[in-house]
Amino acid sequence: MFGCLVAGRLVQAAPQQVAEDKFVFDLPDYENINHVVVFMLGTIPFPEGMGGSVYFCYPDQSGMAVWQLLGFVTNEKPSAIFKISGLKSGKGSQHPFGAMNLPQTPTVAQIGISVELLESLAQQTPVASAAVSSVDSFTEFTQKMLDNFYNFASSFAVTQAQMTPNPSEAFIPANVVLKW
Amino acid sequence: MFGCLVAGRLVQAAPQQVAEDKFVFDLPDYENINHVVVFMLGTIPFPEGMGGSVYFCYPDQSGMAVWQLLGFVTNEKPSAIFKISGLKSGKGSQHPFGAMNLPQTPTVAQIGISVELLESLAQQTPVASAAVSSVDSFTEFTQKMLDNFYNFASSFAVTQAQMTPNPSEAFIPANVVLKW
Repeated sequence: MFGCLVAGRLVQAAPQQVAEDKFVFDLPDYENINHVVVFMLGTIPFPEGMGGSVYFCYPDQSGMAVWQLLGFVTNEKPSAIFKISGLKSGKGSQHPFGAMNLPQTPTVAQIGISVELLESLAQQTPVASAAVSSVDSFTEFTQKMLDNFYNFASSFAVTQAQMTPNPSEAFIPANVVLKW
Repeated sequence: MFGCLVAGRLVQAAPQQVAEDKFVFDLPDYENINHVVVFMLGTIPFPEGMGGSVYFCYPDQSGMAVWQLLGFVTNEKPSAIFKISGLKSGKGSQHPFGAMNLPQTPTVAQIGISVELLESLAQQTPVASAAVSSVDSFTEFTQKMLDNFYNFASSFAVTQAQMTPNPSEAFIPANVVLKW
């Protein structure tokens, strides 16, 4: 039903089915993975009114599984690209794989897919930094980075009255940063 | 041998074979596509010493096919993610699909894969903006954006000696921007 592809590697089309409605792909050497593609094979659609939540699972320093919600696949949007590099600093989120105790190996992460009601998926919020596939999310990312920059730069802002006399130091008017 | 996946859509695993060593996937409604994944199915490897160059082909305003080299897939790196949104402003590059005269439809683009000697692939340069799958290229992109910003902001830089007296306007020391 599902395929999983790590950019640069061979496609996987045979997940481990860990429950009737739960599927898991192993991601060996996950610290060297940037992007993961999760997609429906096109053979079997989701049952009416259902879709899949896609989780990234990796072992924390003590070997415990940390789960993060990456996003969703549905019959209407049967594939998605996720960026998983950089997710390791985040905290785990609620997830439906809790009781399974997947064995954790230090270098192996997992992609987990849970088949759920679309209404249930609509109430879940994926980690923002995992979104790749839409221009919108990329634009949002860039905007956030620039906002951070403006906040950072503004914290150094001075007015002329506060300046220590030093005619050679260059200054940039703050509104130039803001307009950019 | 090859699969192609537009982020958000169903996977395609049956390209049109337009020559012994050339394969083409159609991309309907390509103006709404951001990312395309090209991958080997894992069934048949490339012959020893060979790999595939991956091209994006779209119709220009007069309906002529414009080809751009996105990158490569090989037995060692059997999949890649490419960003094709934003490529339309670029110019076409040399390509090996010339004589084929694929019929062009206004809203349909193509992904073309040409099986060639690895030595030949090594001499070809993909369009830089198509690379997605490595952190390096993302870091480079971000760095380039910040360099552009510094150049932009610096063009407004003034020293205290040049300032028009206006004690309320806020200024940011240029070295803060540079250090960030």
